[in-house]
Amino acid sequence: MSFQIAIGPNIRKSAYFDATVRDGVRSFSVYNHMYIPVHFGHPDSEYDRLLSGVVMWDVAAQRQVELRGPQASQLAQYLTPRNLSGTRVGQGRYVPLCDHAGRLINDPVLLKLAEDRYWLSVADSDIHLWAAAIAAERGFDVAVCEPDVSPLAIQGPQAVEVATALFGDWVRELRYFGFRETTLDGIPLVLARSGWSKQDGYELYLMDSRRGTELWDRVKAAGAPHGIGPGAPNDIERLESGLISYGADMRVQTHPVTPYEMGFGPLIDLAAGHDFIGRAALQALAAAGPARRRVGIFVEGPEASPPGHPVDLLLAGTAVGFVSEIAYSRRLDRVIGVGLVQADIGDGAEGLTIALPDGRRPVRLTGLPFIK
Amino acid sequence: MSFQIAIGPNIRKSAYFDATVRDGVRSFSVYNHMYIPVHFGHPDSEYDRLLSGVVMWDVAAQRQVELRGPQASQLAQYLTPRNLSGTRVGQGRYVPLCDHAGRLINDPVLLKLAEDRYWLSVADSDIHLWAAAIAAERGFDVAVCEPDVSPLAIQGPQAVEVATALFGDWVRELRYFGFRETTLDGIPLVLARSGWSKQDGYELYLMDSRRGTELWDRVKAAGAPHGIGPGAPNDIERLESGLISYGADMRVQTHPVTPYEMGFGPLIDLAAGHDFIGRAALQALAAAGPARRRVGIFVEGPEASPPGHPVDLLLAGTAVGFVSEIAYSRRLDRVIGVGLVQADIGDGAEGLTIALPDGRRPVRLTGLPFIK
Repeated sequence: MSFQIAIGPNIRKSAYFDATVRDGVRSFSVYNHMYIPVHFGHPDSEYDRLLSGVVMWDVAAQRQVELRGPQASQLAQYLTPRNLSGTRVGQGRYVPLCDHAGRLINDPVLLKLAEDRYWLSVADSDIHLWAAAIAAERGFDVAVCEPDVSPLAIQGPQAVEVATALFGDWVRELRYFGFRETTLDGIPLVLARSGWSKQDGYELYLMDSRRGTELWDRVKAAGAPHGIGPGAPNDIERLESGLISYGADMRVQTHPVTPYEMGFGPLIDLAAGHDFIGRAALQALAAAGPARRRVGIFVEGPEASPPGHPVDLLLAGTAVGFVSEIAYSRRLDRVIGVGLVQADIGDGAEGLTIALPDGRRPVRLTGLPFIK
Repeated sequence: MSFQIAIGPNIRKSAYFDATVRDGVRSFSVYNHMYIPVHFGHPDSEYDRLLSGVVMWDVAAQRQVELRGPQASQLAQYLTPRNLSGTRVGQGRYVPLCDHAGRLINDPVLLKLAEDRYWLSVADSDIHLWAAAIAAERGFDVAVCEPDVSPLAIQGPQAVEVATALFGDWVRELRYFGFRETTLDGIPLVLARSGWSKQDGYELYLMDSRRGTELWDRVKAAGAPHGIGPGAPNDIERLESGLISYGADMRVQTHPVTPYEMGFGPLIDLAAGHDFIGRAALQALAAAGPARRRVGIFVEGPEASPPGHPVDLLLAGTAVGFVSEIAYSRRLDRVIGVGLVQADIGDGAEGLTIALPDGRRPVRLTGLPFIK
């Protein structure tokens, strides 16, 4: 199946849209009401470059929700069950967000820019509305907005060389999720050691969308000696690495999950003295233990057409979980996937199957990640 | 520019997805995290059929946010500045939703299904998160969810004949936005006289997504004698008719607007005794008068490539507003558009221009709609 995407004013264009079009983007998706590149016509070499070199990704659709004001810290803390008390300025934290029933509604990285200023670097749901409603109804003295911030990711083992060439040696000392506000020849940005892959890299949070093409071209030039090329967040690598995709792996409206089911239990501090959204529900969930657990799956047989939507994980014809996404991994020479399964079904379970477009296939459960 | 859309598990498929693929959909967009058809390869005849016959549209991406429980009426009323006190079961209402600063965040139709059960049939933003946050923080005894409801629209002057063939003569008596729960050979649905065009028609709110293809095929068969064909919400007709598109005409993160600027003043009841979100802000806005007003524009010159994003409306080089979207109207043989302009600039203003991909063009302001 191949379909066109309509380019119209109801979906936003990224600060890098023009540059990616010029550089040959072939396929888009939509994320946070914004076009996001999916590939540039060479998926295999884009994957190879991520694993062995360096790629540049337009991830401006990873929007920021800014919390700013005297009570920004209180609001940030109320929004997540993770205890933020030790978080310093310049530190990022992976912060699951739950609704009042304890179900995940997003899994952003929180960047603490100042004692009174935070960004939630969000996955694909309108957390700006959620945070604004919470702030207003609780009377927090905090302004919630979506600032003009457009991340560009450079990912891969050579990313550190490109970042060093652009910014200097200090970038080598940044710890994972650490960041610093800086400029690149006058272009304002936040440089963070982060990104949606396990191949190491950086995200350049451009703070002036008018300068998207300029930044894109500077990164491209600095990366040229290292063979940089355009790409996009890679579903195969994310499955191999066990990264979570809000929207694919869970979505609160359609396939809700709890943070305990996703393995976020260690991030949740029920002993903390402060209140946070979903606290009572999470306490009950923690006491009961998770009903399902996150697993990797091996799909037996040759390369398969992915269904393009979650499918039931079946045991003797009965659904005992679901598989979010599958893909053929060249590194493993296997079809792999991720999903959730009933907690009482062990990795050695026999007789599990999934229905794919070209027929039913046996599957086996395994731990995550597939590749460290 | 022509790009592919990636079909993957992070975007939802409509209940009618398989049927639209089988029937030749060529272009998609994404709306409420769901694929929505944009055309089936024949935009001109799809437009003609909407105006003179009947079309069927997969608008399942117009998701429902259900408010259910003893305080559902109180929550519905708190969410909108429109006074709902006279609303009866079986009635729909167009209800602007504002944030606490009085800015529009969505413009759904509210369907009152029962005294304790409402649907907000929402435009493209995550109102399920907004409504859930408000309900929980205010302690309303209401469950907020997104039910399994998938609207299919039949629109055009012949739509009434198709609906009559399917459901019986009673559908002719339905008033605009009126609806009734019913079944079609056992398929549960709500039939409403509504839809995102001014050509009359109905929306069939399917309440069992497993039966999407079945419903699609029944509508197709009933419409065959009237020349029904597949199509999609039509941007040209919506511009001609002055319909609002949340996301294109405004979006709170990028181009926020107030309901007074959009002409919704008559819908807002500041004299009501009850509280609602944004009340204080809207009172101040009403007292000050709107800073901008909604206008139609005529773009001088021949058919033009649309920019695909909002553009500034310029007076002597200075932005005095913006134009959301333009299109060539065959009925008017003019390039038309809609936008917002500073309130002190009258329809007769001279010297206005917009920058299009193929050059600057003079524009003239006019009232809406272009065609009644």
